[in-house]
Amino acid sequence: MFYKDTYISRRARLVSLLSGEKGLAIFLGNADSPQNYPDNCYRFRQDSTFLYFWGIDEPLFAATIDLESGKETIYGDDVDIDDIIWMGPQPSVASRAETVGVHSTAPYNAFFETVRSARKAGRPVHFLPASRHYNAGCLADLLGLSPRQVVSDGKKGCANASAALVKAVISMRLIKEDCEIEEIDKACDITYEMHTAARRGCRAGVPEQELVGRMEGVTLSKGWGTSFSTILSQHGETLHNPWHNAVLEDGKLLLVDAGAENNMHYAGDFTRTFPVSGKFTSKQKDIYNIVLSCNELAFEMAGPGKTYTGISRAVALNMLEGLKGLGLVEGNTGDMLEADVAGLFMPHGLGHNMGLDVHDMEDFGENLEGYDPGQARSPLLGLGSLRMARELRPGHVFTDEPGIYFIPALIEHYRKNGIGKDFIRFDRLESYKDFGGIRIEDDVLVMEYGARRLGRYRLPATVEEVEEDMKQNK
Amino acid sequence: MFYKDTYISRRARLVSLLSGEKGLAIFLGNADSPQNYPDNCYRFRQDSTFLYFWGIDEPLFAATIDLESGKETIYGDDVDIDDIIWMGPQPSVASRAETVGVHSTAPYNAFFETVRSARKAGRPVHFLPASRHYNAGCLADLLGLSPRQVVSDGKKGCANASAALVKAVISMRLIKEDCEIEEIDKACDITYEMHTAARRGCRAGVPEQELVGRMEGVTLSKGWGTSFSTILSQHGETLHNPWHNAVLEDGKLLLVDAGAENNMHYAGDFTRTFPVSGKFTSKQKDIYNIVLSCNELAFEMAGPGKTYTGISRAVALNMLEGLKGLGLVEGNTGDMLEADVAGLFMPHGLGHNMGLDVHDMEDFGENLEGYDPGQARSPLLGLGSLRMARELRPGHVFTDEPGIYFIPALIEHYRKNGIGKDFIRFDRLESYKDFGGIRIEDDVLVMEYGARRLGRYRLPATVEEVEEDMKQNK
Repeated sequence: MFYKDTYISRRARLVSLLSGEKGLAIFLGNADSPQNYPDNCYRFRQDSTFLYFWGIDEPLFAATIDLESGKETIYGDDVDIDDIIWMGPQPSVASRAETVGVHSTAPYNAFFETVRSARKAGRPVHFLPASRHYNAGCLADLLGLSPRQVVSDGKKGCANASAALVKAVISMRLIKEDCEIEEIDKACDITYEMHTAARRGCRAGVPEQELVGRMEGVTLSKGWGTSFSTILSQHGETLHNPWHNAVLEDGKLLLVDAGAENNMHYAGDFTRTFPVSGKFTSKQKDIYNIVLSCNELAFEMAGPGKTYTGISRAVALNMLEGLKGLGLVEGNTGDMLEADVAGLFMPHGLGHNMGLDVHDMEDFGENLEGYDPGQARSPLLGLGSLRMARELRPGHVFTDEPGIYFIPALIEHYRKNGIGKDFIRFDRLESYKDFGGIRIEDDVLVMEYGARRLGRYRLPATVEEVEEDMKQNK
Repeated sequence: MFYKDTYISRRARLVSLLSGEKGLAIFLGNADSPQNYPDNCYRFRQDSTFLYFWGIDEPLFAATIDLESGKETIYGDDVDIDDIIWMGPQPSVASRAETVGVHSTAPYNAFFETVRSARKAGRPVHFLPASRHYNAGCLADLLGLSPRQVVSDGKKGCANASAALVKAVISMRLIKEDCEIEEIDKACDITYEMHTAARRGCRAGVPEQELVGRMEGVTLSKGWGTSFSTILSQHGETLHNPWHNAVLEDGKLLLVDAGAENNMHYAGDFTRTFPVSGKFTSKQKDIYNIVLSCNELAFEMAGPGKTYTGISRAVALNMLEGLKGLGLVEGNTGDMLEADVAGLFMPHGLGHNMGLDVHDMEDFGENLEGYDPGQARSPLLGLGSLRMARELRPGHVFTDEPGIYFIPALIEHYRKNGIGKDFIRFDRLESYKDFGGIRIEDDVLVMEYGARRLGRYRLPATVEEVEEDMKQNK
């Protein structure tokens, strides 16, 4: 937990951003989430915004701020003898509240009564979109809406949520405080160790699942767990491959996209792609070096005042230039971009915000957290998938993760529909249909001048660094 | 996945158990469960009963059996090009259905339409209690009930669910098939390795969290993950301690209660308690040996025709006899039992059913899965907590997990309320208030004659075995 003053000043800032608003701002923490049956739950994860303002990392808490009187209240239940037998003695709700500078507490159910009374009295109730089924059910019931009406429609956000509250929270969580950056660095350090464990275990004949266990064992030993489901696959062309049921084979590339969540719940998120055998083929090296140059270009360009849309565009042009050098595309790269050629090779965006969530605040709606007001999404497949497009400011934390993929179904889709037909050498792509995909990802913090990569060490990145590192496996 | 015939014959058996019932039996599989925001989810876990009858281990599937026509249908959506980019090519719903012997498929949403039409036509809709918030929300909406009305009240079950369907499913899942026992043995073998990893890493100065990561790394490497949240604590007196934030200290006992879920989603669940230093003190040894004798007595008594209530009673008497030998209680042990003295030292039951869930089928209601019709719960604190009370039959799988705990708050509760005051030597308990607790747990299968412990090897159990094993840490 951060110092008490951190939470007090965050809430004071929030209230000042909401000055002029009436009524109640409400914050519903998470409940435990059942794995099999109601009493057998996944590892508890608190709602990120609840953690940010109220710090309490336990299930079944809620909080309100009365925007007129300024009164802050935390709601939760003290334990009884039966709880003590099963869960041990616990601090009281009042003492937990005190550690984050809140002096008024009430039982958990009083949260629901408070919100109902406010609604009855015609007072505005400001809520954030729900990120889980339990919260959606509770909020829907409280507000007379359906569960679907209180969650974000992926990109646009939630029309019924409080626009003022959403905007204020995003503006605060977007710019990381020093104490947060320290935690993200720690999460990146654990992430570094996870990736190192995977590389050290990598050799032909080893099941992918074994490496996943090694990596996740590292982050469970040192932090909360994984910040997202580990991607570890010899099918790097599948962007979010959640399966790990193959066995490692010489000649293949292994893509590992994984991150730790540390004990304070901040995320790390790195990707590396390396040859199972320890040596790249020259064909693999050619594609790898284009991806690496894209990753480094984005990092070099990053700094205050640049937009991530602009950087993404430059990266796409750089990638097309590289592919042109290999003879896979031909023509003017600017024209190719407009014809959606880059999207064939990199159908995802260059990066996303990162913080308490690995896609930070995505539950508020991607357009709201990732785009400045008035910024429109590109209609193109690659650039239009960009989750983070904003003008960069000091304190922004995001990922830099270009990739090049050869997705047989997408190549067929382009060919069939004649997309990019003036530029793409489909004949030459034939021999790449079993290539897979390469992605290289670092986490970046925008500084007063320029930017820095997060975490104490950078994972091996160049062909030479990777091959040198993999010699240790012999 | 098991052979196709396994699923076909399970469903045929279910239909025959439901002969005479009209209408539709419905099975709603699980959705992904959000960790932070809707697209960042915990590792997917299918609903156990859905796995049992329909085998498909992916989110957003459902199934129905028309009890009059016998028609079986699986509902799910085929992937589109966008899904392929992100998740890779997938088998069609029809081919997935074929692998479990189902020939009729429909889109996911048709499940909801089918149930609605059946209700409109006045046909009975047989459903099982929901075990997750998403499923509760869907079922409530479909059936015109509130989410609370479609989940079990912990012990009694769910009054609105189909009593006939619940009873039939319990009767089937309770008696494990040979193919299931093979999987439970595998889960126990991984569980054995988890515990071994914890013991090998155990020495003063090591953070508890580090051992948890080691253990969970093992099960993630070889299986699906943990069958429940790992308990690893030097406060063994807290029965379900989910915290791991202390550092190991010489002189303390470490209680480890943890289990693997294997790739077929069967559970293992072992507990051992051992000294951090590798050597028991004589005070620890005295209590340990009583617990071990209870564990072994239960195992020796287990066999067809015995009830687990009877075994639990014998174990409680044995424990009281041992505590009497140490001078902590005095008087007639039978009288002590009636005065709830055993509950002070062991406030939980001796064991629970185990299978696809670590507390198997607890989502149906503990009284329904754990008690034979007509069997009543004991009003006592210890025996009344028994989750599994049934008469044992070949194929039953359950845990054997006696414990002795010194819970300061519970000792105070007994003293204040005069419970067991004629038997308990509260004065002598004073010096045990920092003792902690000991539990020893194995998993047991009832055979045609007697019973066997599950898993290839038994974890070190006697004082000598544990101390000998811990010498490897030097």
